[in-house]
Amino acid sequence: MAEFNRASLEELLKKRFFFAPSFSAYGGVAGLYDYGPPGCALQANILDLWRKHFVLEEDMLEVDCTIMTPHDVLETSGHVEKFTDWMVRDSQSGEIFRADHLIENVLETRLEGDKKAKSTDTLSATASKNNTKTKKGGAVPVLLDSATKAEYEEILAKIDNYTGPELGEIIKKHNIKNPETGGDLTDPVEFNLMFESSIGPTGSLKGYLRPETAQGQFLNFKKLLEFNNDKMPFASASIGRSFRNEISPRSGLLRVREFVMAEIEHFVDPLSKDHPRFDEVKDIKLRLLDSSIQSEGKTEPKELTIGKAVEEKIVDNQTLGYFLARIQLFLTKLGINPQRLRFRQHMSNEMAHYACDCWDAEIQSSYGWIECVGCADRSAFDLTVHSNRTGEKLVVRESLPEPRVYEKTVLDINKRIFGPRFRQNAKTLESYLLGLSEAELEKLKSDIESNGGKATVNLPNGNSYEVGSDFLTIGRQTFTEHVREYIPNVIEPSFGIGRILYSLIEHVYWTREGDEQRAVLSFPPRVAPFKCLLVPLSNNAAFAPLVRDISSRLRKLNIPIKVDDSSNSIGRRYSRNDELGTPFAITIDFQSTNDGTVTLRERDSTKQIREPVDVILDIVKELVEENTTWKNVMEKYTTFVRQELD
Amino acid sequence: MAEFNRASLEELLKKRFFFAPSFSAYGGVAGLYDYGPPGCALQANILDLWRKHFVLEEDMLEVDCTIMTPHDVLETSGHVEKFTDWMVRDSQSGEIFRADHLIENVLETRLEGDKKAKSTDTLSATASKNNTKTKKGGAVPVLLDSATKAEYEEILAKIDNYTGPELGEIIKKHNIKNPETGGDLTDPVEFNLMFESSIGPTGSLKGYLRPETAQGQFLNFKKLLEFNNDKMPFASASIGRSFRNEISPRSGLLRVREFVMAEIEHFVDPLSKDHPRFDEVKDIKLRLLDSSIQSEGKTEPKELTIGKAVEEKIVDNQTLGYFLARIQLFLTKLGINPQRLRFRQHMSNEMAHYACDCWDAEIQSSYGWIECVGCADRSAFDLTVHSNRTGEKLVVRESLPEPRVYEKTVLDINKRIFGPRFRQNAKTLESYLLGLSEAELEKLKSDIESNGGKATVNLPNGNSYEVGSDFLTIGRQTFTEHVREYIPNVIEPSFGIGRILYSLIEHVYWTREGDEQRAVLSFPPRVAPFKCLLVPLSNNAAFAPLVRDISSRLRKLNIPIKVDDSSNSIGRRYSRNDELGTPFAITIDFQSTNDGTVTLRERDSTKQIREPVDVILDIVKELVEENTTWKNVMEKYTTFVRQELD
Repeated sequence: MAEFNRASLEELLKKRFFFAPSFSAYGGVAGLYDYGPPGCALQANILDLWRKHFVLEEDMLEVDCTIMTPHDVLETSGHVEKFTDWMVRDSQSGEIFRADHLIENVLETRLEGDKKAKSTDTLSATASKNNTKTKKGGAVPVLLDSATKAEYEEILAKIDNYTGPELGEIIKKHNIKNPETGGDLTDPVEFNLMFESSIGPTGSLKGYLRPETAQGQFLNFKKLLEFNNDKMPFASASIGRSFRNEISPRSGLLRVREFVMAEIEHFVDPLSKDHPRFDEVKDIKLRLLDSSIQSEGKTEPKELTIGKAVEEKIVDNQTLGYFLARIQLFLTKLGINPQRLRFRQHMSNEMAHYACDCWDAEIQSSYGWIECVGCADRSAFDLTVHSNRTGEKLVVRESLPEPRVYEKTVLDINKRIFGPRFRQNAKTLESYLLGLSEAELEKLKSDIESNGGKATVNLPNGNSYEVGSDFLTIGRQTFTEHVREYIPNVIEPSFGIGRILYSLIEHVYWTREGDEQRAVLSFPPRVAPFKCLLVPLSNNAAFAPLVRDISSRLRKLNIPIKVDDSSNSIGRRYSRNDELGTPFAITIDFQSTNDGTVTLRERDSTKQIREPVDVILDIVKELVEENTTWKNVMEKYTTFVRQELD
Repeated sequence: MAEFNRASLEELLKKRFFFAPSFSAYGGVAGLYDYGPPGCALQANILDLWRKHFVLEEDMLEVDCTIMTPHDVLETSGHVEKFTDWMVRDSQSGEIFRADHLIENVLETRLEGDKKAKSTDTLSATASKNNTKTKKGGAVPVLLDSATKAEYEEILAKIDNYTGPELGEIIKKHNIKNPETGGDLTDPVEFNLMFESSIGPTGSLKGYLRPETAQGQFLNFKKLLEFNNDKMPFASASIGRSFRNEISPRSGLLRVREFVMAEIEHFVDPLSKDHPRFDEVKDIKLRLLDSSIQSEGKTEPKELTIGKAVEEKIVDNQTLGYFLARIQLFLTKLGINPQRLRFRQHMSNEMAHYACDCWDAEIQSSYGWIECVGCADRSAFDLTVHSNRTGEKLVVRESLPEPRVYEKTVLDINKRIFGPRFRQNAKTLESYLLGLSEAELEKLKSDIESNGGKATVNLPNGNSYEVGSDFLTIGRQTFTEHVREYIPNVIEPSFGIGRILYSLIEHVYWTREGDEQRAVLSFPPRVAPFKCLLVPLSNNAAFAPLVRDISSRLRKLNIPIKVDDSSNSIGRRYSRNDELGTPFAITIDFQSTNDGTVTLRERDSTKQIREPVDVILDIVKELVEENTTWKNVMEKYTTFVRQELD
């Protein structure tokens, strides 16, 4: 098979309008893309499968919350303070760069220059640390000494983990400049990645476009728990747009300012993170790149079953493991190549501010290994901070199957004596006494007993009081608790739909043997934007009634079709639909008008069968719903041979 | 049937979490709502039906464009200047009102006060125009003189059509104040209803959240036309969020700041607005409130077929008429009561700035007749302004079936004589001559002929020149045109999904005879959030295997279910699901564990049948897909009688 060529694929995606930069007539806006009909249908099919695979399969509670979010909510969640990137500015031109990306760029260029210098033996080039300028065509060949090279490599390996001041140090130390102009750069400053706006006419209510759908789900936790008849565990789910005002977006659909996410918040008892359906997935093998492998500087994942991974504590608990396996099932069902999928554990210093453990499903494409699904254990972080801020308790109250009986040392005060005796000091003293721990109470009790019924207590404010057994009783009491109250933990699988969509396209893209112009997108039928192409051999009027009849019958079967009755050659029309990834094509020819048979062509093999219309429609339905495969069809029916005309 | 009680319905919608105000723990934000599981599923089902009814049925090209839109695009479209409402401020408290809504409120209150004064014969109340203050419990009874009353009524009838200064005049003339405090109001000022933000880190690229999905579709016109193999007419479609920063939102889901729209842009040749499928709808009867009825001050719509309406030019053309009929089919399929649906034509002074004709599908609810679908003829407005601004031609070029041959009077200049003779004035004179119309050329020709081969031309700049037949030839020439170029017109059906969803809920809501506590939402099966309830008689462990088996089989059939194995009585559980609008319930009892039969209950009739599981599942599938009706089922199977326990 021909080597992957990104430029050819991009050309195809543009030509067939899978997606395109938004507002191009107005010069475009970086990081904003519109989906044309095939991209839009592909996205809808991915989301439909997502809903069936996750929401329907597990009775998740789907919600749909607003994008516009008031400031206070995102202040509480930590996004106002921490959802930032570091940027630097060219002091002359004012051009703005994302600091870590710029350093990455420049150092990679210098390393490339070093490689070039070695391979071309350009010994005239002197060692220099100042190779910042990329000419058209790549790096300038300049040799690096081995210490510098090692230092660059270390920086690149850790690039996600530096603070802003550290990035500033690196820029100074390694003399990093604007690669285009050589201009000096300012110190890094923080830039908040949320789009800001103002709600209502007063200008005083600040709002942001949500950076994730999660907060809306957390804020509805109480209503959702009630909707679920107070049963735990349960999951909510949400599909919707989120926003990230990137400093300088690049990498096409992989880094955009507006994107569709599909997020699950699985609420679980922190004391039992086992999953009732874990058994169903325990034998699924995953490729795991855990933090221990990474800290050794290696990149080769371990392949093992999720059962084993949880048993060995590589993955913390069953619920997390269950979702990792389910994510893999989902992605491979879409058509993602399992050999180009791995799960990478976050290092502790790269974790988002709310997460306590996190695994990314990374998919390999021509851009490298890209995070497409995050699966984070957010612990009780979000529910706790929102509870604290608003005073609305986001907790589970569970009747205990058996009441919990326990003993505790407690204090009883006889108020009739206590009040009159301490008067204006009574309140301070009482709250001090009631705040004593069990151990302190035991100590006070023994002091009183050993001191003839009296003891002195010293308050933090400096005052001392004499207390005694005449009004204080300290002793063990038995308590019975019928209800347990806890804040649930949250396991959050979070899907970047655009990233998955783009990676999938790369995985299913190939060109026909010996003809790089004939590209094919081999989407599985369920995911393909259009399921069936309907082509009359020519635009002869005799074909029109059959085209109308078959297209209306396919529509009734809810099968999205495309009719191509253009005057292009039949081969040309097949090719066009191979590029759209349309898996099947029904062709109507002169024989059809005589005997009511049509041919059915399969995209990948280009093989055809010829049967009566009714039979073909049944086969198409079964193929599209993935109840049968083309291989099965070929075994049952005779291949129809006709020269394919180009 | 019991009278409609909005408070009870609102209570139900909150209790069953159809939707709820967003961020309520943070005090809420007016005009923002979250959809809980039933609301979210209902919305998804409405959108699914919309996609099938419109997009799939007519091979529309669905696109998905960004919400964030740069300033220039919305300046061109007119939204920066004209997408505004008028607001007034209480000069003391600073409270802000939407001017037209405030006037409406106050005048309606005064008219109500007048009615009250008359009915209670409170003759002590003197005529006053100052009844602005609404006490708890409604208007203060104050009589109005008949001239004032008439004036108020006229203002209310025209309230949508006033300019800001006119609203200011009304406020002054009728002494309108802040109804709560009696405070004075400022003059109306314009408030732009778009949420504003800034794209990227520089702060110099202003953006807005789109107010409609339409602009993204227009800007992709060229790509879409190409995707459609350059064939006209065609339609694009888009489902997505739009935003409107309302001054003071009210009326629940009917006036919100963030909402889902589904919009179609049907691009059509301005010279032929006939529709190829008009015949399929021509006999459908619509209730039309055209502008002539309204200008007579009447509100009773005409009922006539859309065929007749187009014939009589009440509806301008077949394409507009086709969509009005298709909109009605869609809404009634959802469950909208056709008697509470009408199509109202916009008066010329209330039309949006881009529209040249517009009909609203209005649905009646407890809030009155509310616009839920707009169907506007935007003519060539949008494509023209974007073309002019960007220089990108948004046109159709059509090969003419036969070349167009025509004659025209044209001018030919002999440059070898002309240039040297007029030197520095040659350019000005030439462009003047080339700008002459055919009639002017004919006049010039006859002047020259009648004047011995010479004539004087007077330029707008005051200069005069003598021209003659020695270097000017004026005559008829024959032209042949092979291509016609035109800017398409756009017919735009635009659906407010939230408004449709809320109106639908009111239409299908009722309470059981004699028991106002037992509410039912009679959604058609296709639209119902959950299709089937699964209830074991009790939480006896013996039922668990059957519950698991049946729920997994229903899931495989893609039927969204709800299992209720709570300890509530069976009657209570049925009622709860009547409130969710779940049309069917399968009940598992002890007989089921013996003979494998279960009962199937229908929501509206509460009637049941009892059959083996296989049979029941087949029936449910047919019912949910609306291939059969409960009436048909009841005719075929025996009613199962069991006392319903409450």
